[in-house]
Amino acid sequence: MSAQPSHRPLATPDALQRACARLKERFGERFSTAHAVREHHGRDVTFHEGLPDGVIFCHTTEDVQDAVRICGAESVPMIAFGTGTSLEGHIAAIHGGITIDVSQMNQVLEVNAADLDCRVQAGVTRKQLNEYVRQDGLMFPIDPGADASLGGMASTRASGTNAVRYGTMRENVLGLTVVTADGRVIRTGGRARKSSAGYDLTRLFVGAEGTLGIITEVQLRLYGVPEAMTAAVCSFETLAGAVDTVIQTIQMGIPVARIELLDEVQVKACNAYSKLGLPELPLLMFEFHGTAASTREQAETVGELAAGNGGSGFKWATQEEERRALWQARHDAYYACLALKPGAHAFATDVCVPISRLAECLLETKADIDATGAIAPIVGHVGDGNFHLVYLLDPNDPEDRRKADKLNDRMVSRALALGGTCTGEHGIGIGKREFLIAEHGEAVALMRHIKQALDPKNLLNPGKILRV
Amino acid sequence: MSAQPSHRPLATPDALQRACARLKERFGERFSTAHAVREHHGRDVTFHEGLPDGVIFCHTTEDVQDAVRICGAESVPMIAFGTGTSLEGHIAAIHGGITIDVSQMNQVLEVNAADLDCRVQAGVTRKQLNEYVRQDGLMFPIDPGADASLGGMASTRASGTNAVRYGTMRENVLGLTVVTADGRVIRTGGRARKSSAGYDLTRLFVGAEGTLGIITEVQLRLYGVPEAMTAAVCSFETLAGAVDTVIQTIQMGIPVARIELLDEVQVKACNAYSKLGLPELPLLMFEFHGTAASTREQAETVGELAAGNGGSGFKWATQEEERRALWQARHDAYYACLALKPGAHAFATDVCVPISRLAECLLETKADIDATGAIAPIVGHVGDGNFHLVYLLDPNDPEDRRKADKLNDRMVSRALALGGTCTGEHGIGIGKREFLIAEHGEAVALMRHIKQALDPKNLLNPGKILRV
Repeated sequence: MSAQPSHRPLATPDALQRACARLKERFGERFSTAHAVREHHGRDVTFHEGLPDGVIFCHTTEDVQDAVRICGAESVPMIAFGTGTSLEGHIAAIHGGITIDVSQMNQVLEVNAADLDCRVQAGVTRKQLNEYVRQDGLMFPIDPGADASLGGMASTRASGTNAVRYGTMRENVLGLTVVTADGRVIRTGGRARKSSAGYDLTRLFVGAEGTLGIITEVQLRLYGVPEAMTAAVCSFETLAGAVDTVIQTIQMGIPVARIELLDEVQVKACNAYSKLGLPELPLLMFEFHGTAASTREQAETVGELAAGNGGSGFKWATQEEERRALWQARHDAYYACLALKPGAHAFATDVCVPISRLAECLLETKADIDATGAIAPIVGHVGDGNFHLVYLLDPNDPEDRRKADKLNDRMVSRALALGGTCTGEHGIGIGKREFLIAEHGEAVALMRHIKQALDPKNLLNPGKILRV
Repeated sequence: MSAQPSHRPLATPDALQRACARLKERFGERFSTAHAVREHHGRDVTFHEGLPDGVIFCHTTEDVQDAVRICGAESVPMIAFGTGTSLEGHIAAIHGGITIDVSQMNQVLEVNAADLDCRVQAGVTRKQLNEYVRQDGLMFPIDPGADASLGGMASTRASGTNAVRYGTMRENVLGLTVVTADGRVIRTGGRARKSSAGYDLTRLFVGAEGTLGIITEVQLRLYGVPEAMTAAVCSFETLAGAVDTVIQTIQMGIPVARIELLDEVQVKACNAYSKLGLPELPLLMFEFHGTAASTREQAETVGELAAGNGGSGFKWATQEEERRALWQARHDAYYACLALKPGAHAFATDVCVPISRLAECLLETKADIDATGAIAPIVGHVGDGNFHLVYLLDPNDPEDRRKADKLNDRMVSRALALGGTCTGEHGIGIGKREFLIAEHGEAVALMRHIKQALDPKNLLNPGKILRV
């Protein structure tokens, strides 16, 4: 983890004042400098912090364009904000500036059921979209847990539990409307399923964390709701047995929709929080999508694999209610963690490794947690080789924070040494900038060239991904 | 289609001479200025042309790096070359310069069977890779028809018949080794299945047609060879009936591996060329991958859909030999076309539209072909909304070329008006630069900023995608 951010304001007080006056004039009540509003926008669910100097609530792409032009003219930094559920300090205004809140841009603009695509404003959340398209028998499967905005999910290249089957935002964003640093509105990508027309700007903005442009609309792939969806759970004597089951499932090409791992600490937390009564052992949770026959075939094959790896109590949940309860518990894992140590702060981090190295990475990390004497449950989207650690931190003990940082350092170094990445889905933000360099070396210089080309004054979410 | 390229050399004769002398010194026999070698490298399978001033045959990333440094120091353009099977003039040295041929970089560097990935040198072809990994029960499904190099397939964002299930090169390249314009070697992406670490440089180089860097190694996803692979064909009274079957198949989420359309002109050509004896009607060819049970289920469902849309003679080919013969005929479609009009040149072009607009786009295009009085069979990867037209051109009749260009113009305009793209998989090259602007408008200015940032002297395949 990097050192604390500098909080050096990039705009001069005079310029900031002029920008605020013009924003007030343009946006009226929709521009706020109230402390409570700034505080709400400057702090994420972890503990990265940096209060913006003001917050604009935009309703349209033109609003964002005007905001960017006004801030740009005065060289004031701009930070895009969706729901504030990111984890690596993406939204913290560490160099001051104005937050551009798109949460009120919450219109579903079009649904093309026949083509399985839609276009939404950036503030539409994934749950809102799913409710909207359910009537057409459609769904948007990317599910990072939080009910995040789709613009934010695009910006952080979010993924989550369904990525093993449906991919991440990288695979599911067809196109974007983006306001560039110089205040232009561009459309990237399009509705065609594939294209080899020019540079892939869509993929460049997906995962750019608002540092190259501000996403105002997202064109997304949709999927038909499968005829059958079944879930299953299975407990394992050892973590290695669980991971081997995952590896074999992937290698056999079973098109499983989700495979989640909870270690015994996390299972214990979920039992307490969600009243589950599961054996306090490493647990795999599966979901299968398809026809009735194909999901049965998938579940049976996986059940056999699990049994061969010391899995016991393989249990189906074909009933919708039972299935939902199970996944709700998985989604509440974060809150279940917090409940393990009342008053604690959660320090969440993730890595992703090639699946053949997953057991090694997980087991060494668990041994390291034990040696540290920490409470840090592990959950993972293990079908992708991605897992999360939530370190429960005593906010009044600076030493505990240092221990967490060092544990994280070692976990990331371990993942990189195993051919993995420093973050599977949380992003770089301010927390992982040093690790980005460790992972990508010289390639980071190219990222910097691109940043300079598209945002020469460094006004779009400065200090994120790349240091100022 | 754009006007003819300018063929304006970008390097001064003196600089070129100095570069050639240094290349001869460094590469010896592996640097050639022989006319036959230059001609082989300056002409693609269509009729775009531009002879390079010399050709280097590289063996390693370091070779490419040295070549780029030598050419860069003298401001001499560089054109990457794999197998020369691209279709839009990607390899033509329209502004002179040196071709960097990577076809002898043909080593498979690593296969990680457990992780379903591999790393290959850029000159390895898709068939070579498939032969190499077959022993491990693995396959690389992306199949553009030609036995192209994987570096070239990455550079042109190739896809082909299997893309409806397995995606394009965009989804299947995990990472790249790239020599940048300033002669650095960078590694993008990595072996983790997903990552949110920084800008997606991998996707930026995929489809950049060698204009942002030269790809020397490719990390790719692999897939287990499915337990069962079955093929089927079905003839339709009308093109609309065939297309409706495709749309319903996709909308039902049937995980079909290929759906190819051949119009009656193409079927006639294939009958003659590959001795098939198919009814001379619009034809769909399907392939299903999965378990024995799931492929049977898929084929039965599709058979029912076809019957509902006037399909007749739905016929399975479960035997490996029969299946291969069928797909070989599909792959030979291009040569079958050429045989329709001996002596003709093939002018191949493609577009891709949202699938709900596919019937409209196809039927209008066919009517336009008829009105033009041309022989121009249509084949399509219609599961993606992508189709190709091959105009059989009299090379001695300039008027025929103008007619082909105009037909292409109208087809692309039609596709764009229907929400599609000017090219689904052939790329921009020199042939579709104007259409790129028509499709992406202001976003092309951003592409230009990126090109300037990564290749400030405009030496990497100049004039492709973007005009000089």
